[in-house]
Amino acid sequence: MNTNIQAVNSDLAARIQARIDAKTKPIGALGQLESTAKKIALIQNSLEPKLKKAHILLFAGDHGLCDEGISPYPQAVTGEMLKNFQSGGAAINVFARQHQIDLSIIDCGIKTALGLESVQEMRLGEGTANAKLQDAITAKQLIKGLANGATLANKLFQDGCNTLGFGEMGIGNSSAAALITARLCDAPIDLSAGTGTGCDPEQLKHKKKVLRKTLENHQNALTPLEVMSAFGGFEMLTAMGAMLKGAQLGMTLLIDGFIMSSVALAAVKQETHALDYMIFCHESASPGHRIILDELKQQPLLSLGMRLGEGTGVAVAFPILQSACAFMNEMATFEAAEVSAKI
Amino acid sequence: MNTNIQAVNSDLAARIQARIDAKTKPIGALGQLESTAKKIALIQNSLEPKLKKAHILLFAGDHGLCDEGISPYPQAVTGEMLKNFQSGGAAINVFARQHQIDLSIIDCGIKTALGLESVQEMRLGEGTANAKLQDAITAKQLIKGLANGATLANKLFQDGCNTLGFGEMGIGNSSAAALITARLCDAPIDLSAGTGTGCDPEQLKHKKKVLRKTLENHQNALTPLEVMSAFGGFEMLTAMGAMLKGAQLGMTLLIDGFIMSSVALAAVKQETHALDYMIFCHESASPGHRIILDELKQQPLLSLGMRLGEGTGVAVAFPILQSACAFMNEMATFEAAEVSAKI
Repeated sequence: MNTNIQAVNSDLAARIQARIDAKTKPIGALGQLESTAKKIALIQNSLEPKLKKAHILLFAGDHGLCDEGISPYPQAVTGEMLKNFQSGGAAINVFARQHQIDLSIIDCGIKTALGLESVQEMRLGEGTANAKLQDAITAKQLIKGLANGATLANKLFQDGCNTLGFGEMGIGNSSAAALITARLCDAPIDLSAGTGTGCDPEQLKHKKKVLRKTLENHQNALTPLEVMSAFGGFEMLTAMGAMLKGAQLGMTLLIDGFIMSSVALAAVKQETHALDYMIFCHESASPGHRIILDELKQQPLLSLGMRLGEGTGVAVAFPILQSACAFMNEMATFEAAEVSAKI
Repeated sequence: MNTNIQAVNSDLAARIQARIDAKTKPIGALGQLESTAKKIALIQNSLEPKLKKAHILLFAGDHGLCDEGISPYPQAVTGEMLKNFQSGGAAINVFARQHQIDLSIIDCGIKTALGLESVQEMRLGEGTANAKLQDAITAKQLIKGLANGATLANKLFQDGCNTLGFGEMGIGNSSAAALITARLCDAPIDLSAGTGTGCDPEQLKHKKKVLRKTLENHQNALTPLEVMSAFGGFEMLTAMGAMLKGAQLGMTLLIDGFIMSSVALAAVKQETHALDYMIFCHESASPGHRIILDELKQQPLLSLGMRLGEGTGVAVAFPILQSACAFMNEMATFEAAEVSAKI
């Protein structure tokens, strides 16, 4: 797979910064809104960045590792939540409606196909294999999953979307994210694994034991794609394909919490410049997320102690991205407003 | 002054929490959105909290202490920015438009009256007196300023507004905030004073020297109102009156950054239960803000390194408050959505 992701064109960097600094405010006074505006302007190679047809892709999948009892919720919840997404009652529905962000639900391979009208089926199987015992994902599934993701990103791009949000649903996928993080950041699994949807201390102890053993059983999984095969989920794999394609197309990629950041990590380890296109929307309460953010040297926009997934962090942070573009496009300059500069 | 601010009624607390916990998400998974929703629900004494006719009051005033050279910007900027607010080109205009928040600009006493059409004049003088030499605010101005603020809050309340945002403009007011913070939190002025709009190291050294001396000259200013008289600004005083009245009326008070938080601090030291009605919208890059937040044990919603004032932190955080109310009102429960609970 060669996605040929280019670094963003930095020719405009000085002019973008000058435009930001000419606005009627002390230099730097809008903090991270300024760095975010600059990042989006660089991605779009434009002095007037605009988020067009923002769209959240919500990838769902089931995990074979659940057979080991690593989640306090029954696996059926993945499918039940898909029905909840369809009927509009989940948190992501509420927040996407609030900000008029389009939302697509993709079944990448939950345990049992549901045939729901508003769910796209790009199923790679009936849940992944049990990663403790074998690779979670086969080579054939890997290729197909990445291609599926690329197809999704490309279709939205053709439709005029330049802003792609990433969310997920999959009981057990905080375990997959912990494994990917541990391997790709060379971090102890004890630190990258957390309580997920809400393990009690006894369950967490068991979860960590299973994850330690699973990691040991895949000593040779080292490259991003090997790691994704060994530990990943179908929803994570498909998201990785969409991230790589989205970056190649110059789209702004909005990354949700721990799970989607572990996918972003794999994508960046695969293609360094993918990072140029990514904005990390919130810092999850899951402890593994900080490991990834430090590895990628990223500061997320929000830190609200959220740990829900679904793309909720993307949706809640979205108006801040809009604020970043709005001040660039709408604020007066010192000159135009006839406001005195510093003495 | 007796505002009789009541603690919020906590009779509904258990039912509010139960409603939050019944939503289709793991317990606590929406983090600070949950605590924020609960706070607003308690303020409104309702299981269905709603932000109605949100309105930002932007208070402007000039500071006599500027005679001591404590700001790198000329004092004329306060008035020039009022013109910028009127023509819609300032950051607060952009963000208030983005979120359809009403905005009122109040001249509480800038150096020279401008007679601008869209600026309400509630002038207490032509800037405060030089706090290094005497009380910045006289007793008569104090009473009038608090009453002006109360009038503003009451008028909006009568008009159906239940959500009041607080912003300010006033060259030199980060010095006033640093002095108020130092005295009311018993903190060293060296820690509560920062670069404000952007002092260089030499200017900051001078600013701190002036502030140390000013603080010494008002050893007897100890109560919140004495402290406001000694160091405050007309814009800060009027905001204090609006906060106290807003809390008394059961409105949700949205506090901006360092300057408005120093006013909130004074209001809470005056009336303990005012804190029940306050939401701190963002953490400013000004170092004194952390001192106030620790003193009041508050965790702001945003931490984006902003330090602009004007109410910009309120406006940028506003959609997060709306998200908090939206999930309370719109998310499905486990029961309604037929999603399995924890095993």
